[in-house]
Amino acid sequence: MNKIKYIAFDADDTLWINETLFRINEQKFSELLSKYNKNHDFIERLYQKELENLRHFGYGIKGFVLSMIETAIELTDSEVSADDIKQILDWGKEQLNHPVELINGVKEVVNKLGEKYILLIITKGDLFDQESKIARSGLADYFTHIEIVSDKNDDVYSNILKKYNILKEEFLMVGNSMKSDILPIINIGAKAIHIPFETTWVHELVEDGLENNNYLELESISELEKILIK
Amino acid sequence: MNKIKYIAFDADDTLWINETLFRINEQKFSELLSKYNKNHDFIERLYQKELENLRHFGYGIKGFVLSMIETAIELTDSEVSADDIKQILDWGKEQLNHPVELINGVKEVVNKLGEKYILLIITKGDLFDQESKIARSGLADYFTHIEIVSDKNDDVYSNILKKYNILKEEFLMVGNSMKSDILPIINIGAKAIHIPFETTWVHELVEDGLENNNYLELESISELEKILIK
Repeated sequence: MNKIKYIAFDADDTLWINETLFRINEQKFSELLSKYNKNHDFIERLYQKELENLRHFGYGIKGFVLSMIETAIELTDSEVSADDIKQILDWGKEQLNHPVELINGVKEVVNKLGEKYILLIITKGDLFDQESKIARSGLADYFTHIEIVSDKNDDVYSNILKKYNILKEEFLMVGNSMKSDILPIINIGAKAIHIPFETTWVHELVEDGLENNNYLELESISELEKILIK
Repeated sequence: MNKIKYIAFDADDTLWINETLFRINEQKFSELLSKYNKNHDFIERLYQKELENLRHFGYGIKGFVLSMIETAIELTDSEVSADDIKQILDWGKEQLNHPVELINGVKEVVNKLGEKYILLIITKGDLFDQESKIARSGLADYFTHIEIVSDKNDDVYSNILKKYNILKEEFLMVGNSMKSDILPIINIGAKAIHIPFETTWVHELVEDGLENNNYLELESISELEKILIK
């Protein structure tokens, strides 16, 4: 980690809680629709609809709400009432306006790391919603560059490094998603630290693997300090 | 215009047709709902709902569709059928996937200007939708930098100039919106060219005003060539 000058953080479920809010609304959605039909797995069918609609809507809450409405209409054979659709819309607005809850230790860690490193946010999703959350998080001032992207892949990361003249040896990405935050970073030859969001997803600490694999797994963001601040 | 090195283009209604598609869907929306109630000005009420929802959804088609659905439920006293809501959703998807229609002369102009200037796109709206349109437009390769922002104001433009080390004297913005593309640019002391999208909005050519006002109005994008290529 000696050469690291830039640390980029994923935002949703790395800096603040996000996925939990989707799970809560999926559960409410399922309960709302169960009065029409008890034979569907509404959450699973919603997930399939979200995947199908990804090419139209991209990631984010607005697309999630549109997919909930579409799923509700389809799975109730168009019997879902306008009031229930309004309920889904209102849950969507509540989710968009939900207070940003920082994950434990985040504020202390970015404050400390910001003294020694240049910090970035690289987050995937809806531009308006992500900007709003960054503003409401109270963390914006700790980050020199903020990049909101529609997807995270090798090219997207390479272009960000190029844009800011960052060498891959100088770059560390921290995030909760293997697919979005870790694998593309390893592919481009930079370093990554994986901090799973759900405790059930936590693997063992793999400190030994770091030198060889450019990749480390931690249990909580607070552990960054002992690794990155000597 | 002698010092100009960078030309930034707005995208929607400057490079390609956009607003027209909203107008078409508003019209269909109004016709769809007129069977429930003939006493509402559905288009006006939809517009009010869009303004009200801007703070939740930001700009873009997904927010527009959600506002159409909410307006339909409210103005029909929850009598709107699920099938009609599905129809609104489908129109939204059609709008998202509508072929990108370049405005006349755009391809020739960016091709020509690209030989002498560094070109940028600075566009406001939904990240996923804007990226998709830029890709489908076939124009991406002409532009060195592409900035998709959630709003266009003095600070947003100042930050973009700072990010790319562009002096305000070197920067020209071209766009169809006085509010988003012209006024903030004049405020930060750079130059702007206004090309209204609708012919009814076209003012007289104000070439004389350019030296004094940093601002020029043209009838069509093709006229850029005679001003910017000697």
